[in-house]
Amino acid sequence: MTRIKVINPNTALAMTESIGRCARAVASSSTEIIAVSPRMGPESIESHYDEALAVPGVLAEIAAGERDGVDAYVIACFGDPGLDAARELASGPVIGVAEAAMHAATLVGRGFSVVTTLSRTAGRAWDLAHRYGFAAACRGVHACEIPVLGLEDPAARATVTELCVSAVERDGSDSVVLGCAGMASFCAEVSRATGVPVIDGVSVATRLAESLVALGLRTGKRGEYARPRPKRYSGLLRDFTT
Amino acid sequence: MTRIKVINPNTALAMTESIGRCARAVASSSTEIIAVSPRMGPESIESHYDEALAVPGVLAEIAAGERDGVDAYVIACFGDPGLDAARELASGPVIGVAEAAMHAATLVGRGFSVVTTLSRTAGRAWDLAHRYGFAAACRGVHACEIPVLGLEDPAARATVTELCVSAVERDGSDSVVLGCAGMASFCAEVSRATGVPVIDGVSVATRLAESLVALGLRTGKRGEYARPRPKRYSGLLRDFTT
Amino acid sequence: MTRIKVINPNTALAMTESIGRCARAVASSSTEIIAVSPRMGPESIESHYDEALAVPGVLAEIAAGERDGVDAYVIACFGDPGLDAARELASGPVIGVAEAAMHAATLVGRGFSVVTTLSRTAGRAWDLAHRYGFAAACRGVHACEIPVLGLEDPAARATVTELCVSAVERDGSDSVVLGCAGMASFCAEVSRATGVPVIDGVSVATRLAESLVALGLRTGKRGEYARPRPKRYSGLLRDFTT
Amino acid sequence: MTRIKVINPNTALAMTESIGRCARAVASSSTEIIAVSPRMGPESIESHYDEALAVPGVLAEIAAGERDGVDAYVIACFGDPGLDAARELASGPVIGVAEAAMHAATLVGRGFSVVTTLSRTAGRAWDLAHRYGFAAACRGVHACEIPVLGLEDPAARATVTELCVSAVERDGSDSVVLGCAGMASFCAEVSRATGVPVIDGVSVATRLAESLVALGLRTGKRGEYARPRPKRYSGLLRDFTT
Amino acid sequence: MTRIKVINPNTALAMTESIGRCARAVASSSTEIIAVSPRMGPESIESHYDEALAVPGVLAEIAAGERDGVDAYVIACFGDPGLDAARELASGPVIGVAEAAMHAATLVGRGFSVVTTLSRTAGRAWDLAHRYGFAAACRGVHACEIPVLGLEDPAARATVTELCVSAVERDGSDSVVLGCAGMASFCAEVSRATGVPVIDGVSVATRLAESLVALGLRTGKRGEYARPRPKRYSGLLRDFTT
Amino acid sequence: MTRIKVINPNTALAMTESIGRCARAVASSSTEIIAVSPRMGPESIESHYDEALAVPGVLAEIAAGERDGVDAYVIACFGDPGLDAARELASGPVIGVAEAAMHAATLVGRGFSVVTTLSRTAGRAWDLAHRYGFAAACRGVHACEIPVLGLEDPAARATVTELCVSAVERDGSDSVVLGCAGMASFCAEVSRATGVPVIDGVSVATRLAESLVALGLRTGKRGEYARPRPKRYSGLLRDFTT
Repeated sequence: MTRIKVINPNTALAMTESIGRCARAVASSSTEIIAVSPRMGPESIESHYDEALAVPGVLAEIAAGERDGVDAYVIACFGDPGLDAARELASGPVIGVAEAAMHAATLVGRGFSVVTTLSRTAGRAWDLAHRYGFAAACRGVHACEIPVLGLEDPAARATVTELCVSAVERDGSDSVVLGCAGMASFCAEVSRATGVPVIDGVSVATRLAESLVALGLRTGKRGEYARPRPKRYSGLLRDFTT
Repeated sequence: MTRIKVINPNTALAMTESIGRCARAVASSSTEIIAVSPRMGPESIESHYDEALAVPGVLAEIAAGERDGVDAYVIACFGDPGLDAARELASGPVIGVAEAAMHAATLVGRGFSVVTTLSRTAGRAWDLAHRYGFAAACRGVHACEIPVLGLEDPAARATVTELCVSAVERDGSDSVVLGCAGMASFCAEVSRATGVPVIDGVSVATRLAESLVALGLRTGKRGEYARPRPKRYSGLLRDFTT
Repeated sequence: MTRIKVINPNTALAMTESIGRCARAVASSSTEIIAVSPRMGPESIESHYDEALAVPGVLAEIAAGERDGVDAYVIACFGDPGLDAARELASGPVIGVAEAAMHAATLVGRGFSVVTTLSRTAGRAWDLAHRYGFAAACRGVHACEIPVLGLEDPAARATVTELCVSAVERDGSDSVVLGCAGMASFCAEVSRATGVPVIDGVSVATRLAESLVALGLRTGKRGEYARPRPKRYSGLLRDFTT
Repeated sequence: MTRIKVINPNTALAMTESIGRCARAVASSSTEIIAVSPRMGPESIESHYDEALAVPGVLAEIAAGERDGVDAYVIACFGDPGLDAARELASGPVIGVAEAAMHAATLVGRGFSVVTTLSRTAGRAWDLAHRYGFAAACRGVHACEIPVLGLEDPAARATVTELCVSAVERDGSDSVVLGCAGMASFCAEVSRATGVPVIDGVSVATRLAESLVALGLRTGKRGEYARPRPKRYSGLLRDFTT
Repeated sequence: MTRIKVINPNTALAMTESIGRCARAVASSSTEIIAVSPRMGPESIESHYDEALAVPGVLAEIAAGERDGVDAYVIACFGDPGLDAARELASGPVIGVAEAAMHAATLVGRGFSVVTTLSRTAGRAWDLAHRYGFAAACRGVHACEIPVLGLEDPAARATVTELCVSAVERDGSDSVVLGCAGMASFCAEVSRATGVPVIDGVSVATRLAESLVALGLRTGKRGEYARPRPKRYSGLLRDFTT
Repeated sequence: MTRIKVINPNTALAMTESIGRCARAVASSSTEIIAVSPRMGPESIESHYDEALAVPGVLAEIAAGERDGVDAYVIACFGDPGLDAARELASGPVIGVAEAAMHAATLVGRGFSVVTTLSRTAGRAWDLAHRYGFAAACRGVHACEIPVLGLEDPAARATVTELCVSAVERDGSDSVVLGCAGMASFCAEVSRATGVPVIDGVSVATRLAESLVALGLRTGKRGEYARPRPKRYSGLLRDFTT
């Protein structure tokens, strides 16, 4: 039994449940999905600020997962908040959903379009595309200007779908990447409308995490990603000892 | 039942069998691995020339796979010969082992070293690293100067292992990528010696192919990777009609 | 007397003749142009698949050229199929027409536009621009959506010319590169219409090949481009021994 | 009177004082330097994990600065933790010391070497060099393997100085960047030993912050760096309302 | 007392005076600004040719400044003519206004738009953006098609302002860089119209030069920027002995 | 009869004669080579400063060539001084020898090493490699530390040859580029010693210039390289009217 902890970095529990459902839908029968939200952090992530404040909660969940013998982790927010730090902390693999989606997109075509929530988050998406090596493959980042928690509104689905259609057309892309974990359930509809593969990072990250565990691959620990040196943390973060 | 065809692009049948074993060792129980060699092509691939001549045989196997209802393909040579053409031909996903290994390496660390056979093949490895977006992550390509078919010699294992150890040290890498499908069985030994994750592309590609099938993701067909237009082929290639 | 073999990688003989005329029109009087088509391969090249299947025939022509004492080779298809392999095989220089055209374009201005046949081939043009170092100089790849063999239709000339005019305008380019050997005869007309230099790779490659011979420069053979190691080839390719 | 808040992201107060002295030594007489440590966070920053946990404290200090009418901020840790988030929060400019040092280095020469503490932090230094556009100018990142708090040991000064000398020699650099705010007081000595400009980010960032204020330049607020949308934060971070 | 020589590389004295005013407006009270034009050179700089011919005059002013004990130099033309050569000649720092403006722009946002005079100068602006590491941050170079000396026409101000507004909109930029020293006085108006920071290189370069002097930082002289070896110069340039 | 003016940008007449001989040795019988030195400028070019001061003389020769009906120009100094400005001024093509050599090197192999005079000139060589798109192909720039005018010393030949041998070995290059027009006569000897193609830019540029003329290709004049606008030049440069 492989245990994968899927961490929704915001505190919106309905979204955590939806993310859990997406992960379970693609996981092997021998995989247990543990979907959680941190106990601290923002209710949605739409800025560098929100992201920065989501990270301690994500790391607390990683630390708890280590105590519980979790095999691998998914960070289920398209900014991949805390990914490098999580890799230091975890003994098993950690996958971000933006990372996973971009990897998958380059396996099913040459160029992809990202459709995201607010335009202010596009800079982060581009940063990640550069960091992961996919800046040339990423042909456009398009914002629907719907806030994360507004994606549950039924009208959002149509707006996002239309934007995906126009993005594929404008960018000449081979696939669409859904740039928010809250869009995971839109896959089928967007796929029908665009005629190209539509990639939800939660699903892909779940399968990648599972695969790395099956292959016996985990983060290399000889250098940058070695476990953090134990040290004193002050104030509210007093309990973050590694 | 998912059917994955693993194509060894050279005609060395012992290597095809070994590759098949590697793939089966990591595949899910619900996946059938069909390991084949083309009926035409070079007995080993160690130059651009060999690679070019291996491609028609690889494509013939893809075409046969399409007739047989294969779900996904792995091209099991570190030069990923014919990958773009195969993606046009196949309806399901196609994964190259260099591509797969480099993707996995960037999921378990920041930088990786490639250890390959002859130094004349390093240019191709770098070309692929650039093509896939991993040129910054690839910290070195190191040749053991053992030809592909010489890897079966028991002494080869020790030579490759030593080279991996020195490559990781020199490059400060987080992982090692084995740069030839014929090294797949060296993983455990190299891993012990280096203390870092060791990545065999055949295993990773098999899991990635399986995952893409499970996720319902296949090559986007709206543009560059649309099925080739039917046309007349002359001479020895007369039968290559799409 | 310098002998240059100009290989049209497809089997459309009318196109081979036209390519030969273009080459002869710019060659020095002391140069003999041998224009050929392979005996096997596709009748036109419009996909990665076509290109892959054209390569063995191209290499057979290189091998024959070596036996005949040819001094240099031109590969006259804008995808430069088999260029690396041909460089291994040939003792003299080998030039691709995309390569030649892009080199020339960067000598007569900062940025160029490529006008090609089908949009599905744009990815290959970009790959080459990256490979040769001209990705920043290449400001756009524009498709007229006329198949290669349709270029002989008189209407094609006007369509291509109009596209060249709009491409230069949109991209702010200093020159236009004709992205198919079948467009070589359009140069004068496109040049009049656009007012910028118009570059046909066949002509340029012929002059570059001639120049390299005159300069005594040939592919370096100490590493990657050393002659391929002799080995056994099976099946239809049995006769491809180096 | 310009008020610049210099935030030492770790909680080592001796280091905060030393950083404050460095800033005051270069500030104009009309500038007030407010040097602080966050009330929460790690005592030193030597990993992605430490850095992630330092960020909330840094942001709390920015928020407090906004209430106090601070004109500009310096984040005085070489990883520039929380810089993007701080720019969203602050109305005036925010400068990171790695950013400042790299900017200055490219104004006094073509290439620079970074000398840092532990080799595990080199990845972050390279990330920043890429992010700021200075990856080509950064010729090497060299670790002395002394932890941050060990820099106060008198022997550290000699070790760092020797490493700077060998780094300049090996990299052929025009300057040295001191890769830890804790090395700020080593400038004069390293400069004498190496004969090249030695750059301490704290000093440079202080002057840059002052200059931006004098020039009336502040972070653009129309897009990515707009003030974060107000929202609910849970748990320990409950008070982080914007 | 710090002495900064601000060199307007063209010979239009009204522009030199205006540049001097801009520099003095931002300089500290303890800084003396010496604004000059060379005695030889073009009356405006709008081509590579003009720029090349402006350089000897700029270098003569640097040489004179060295004799006069000048502390730092600003080259006040957006092409940064002669910057590398000036750095060899001067013992103190030398800053170009394009360089300064681009550095400042990346400190107040992620992306900037450049608004320049004639479109034929855009290539130089892009060259500089690449050279300084800011090619990714530079989102567009837009020409108003007003010659340099035409900027004094009252109508020019409105034309430039409108172009800045549309450039920010189209590029999604966080700031605007004024791409000609002759636009320095437009800052306030453009800032009001666009709502983003507007950056004039003359002001920024003045403050950067002052800051480098205050920090004791000057061009590294161990390698590329060492003082030129003395040698014989012929003809009109007979007096250019170093 | 094609007339090519080969401009040695320094005033060392012995070097001009040697450069002329190299050009004539490879030119077609129907080409007239006019080898000249400017009447003003430095006796050798070994810094950005020398280069800047060589440019006006180069441009005066271009202007004179235009009056004399010259068909094409070669700028015979490895820094390619004044190339962009010369392209504006000339109606026919202009080729720099560094540009020419790097183009040729990428046609005969994947990677090349540059061997140059003083290490202080390496920065310029790298700038050009980046500018022309060959930064990835340029594997090393190696300085023999012999000044330009010292290359005529018989001992220089052996020193340069040895450096070429070690450069090829260290860089794993396919060819060597001689990084100074004063090394043109060393080709044969270096070629024998290294076993790889050795590239002298003067020879290559001559053939490229000839070829562009034969192909009817000249610098595009619609944008950046349009003829400079006429304007007033002051002082020593009074006569530089376009």
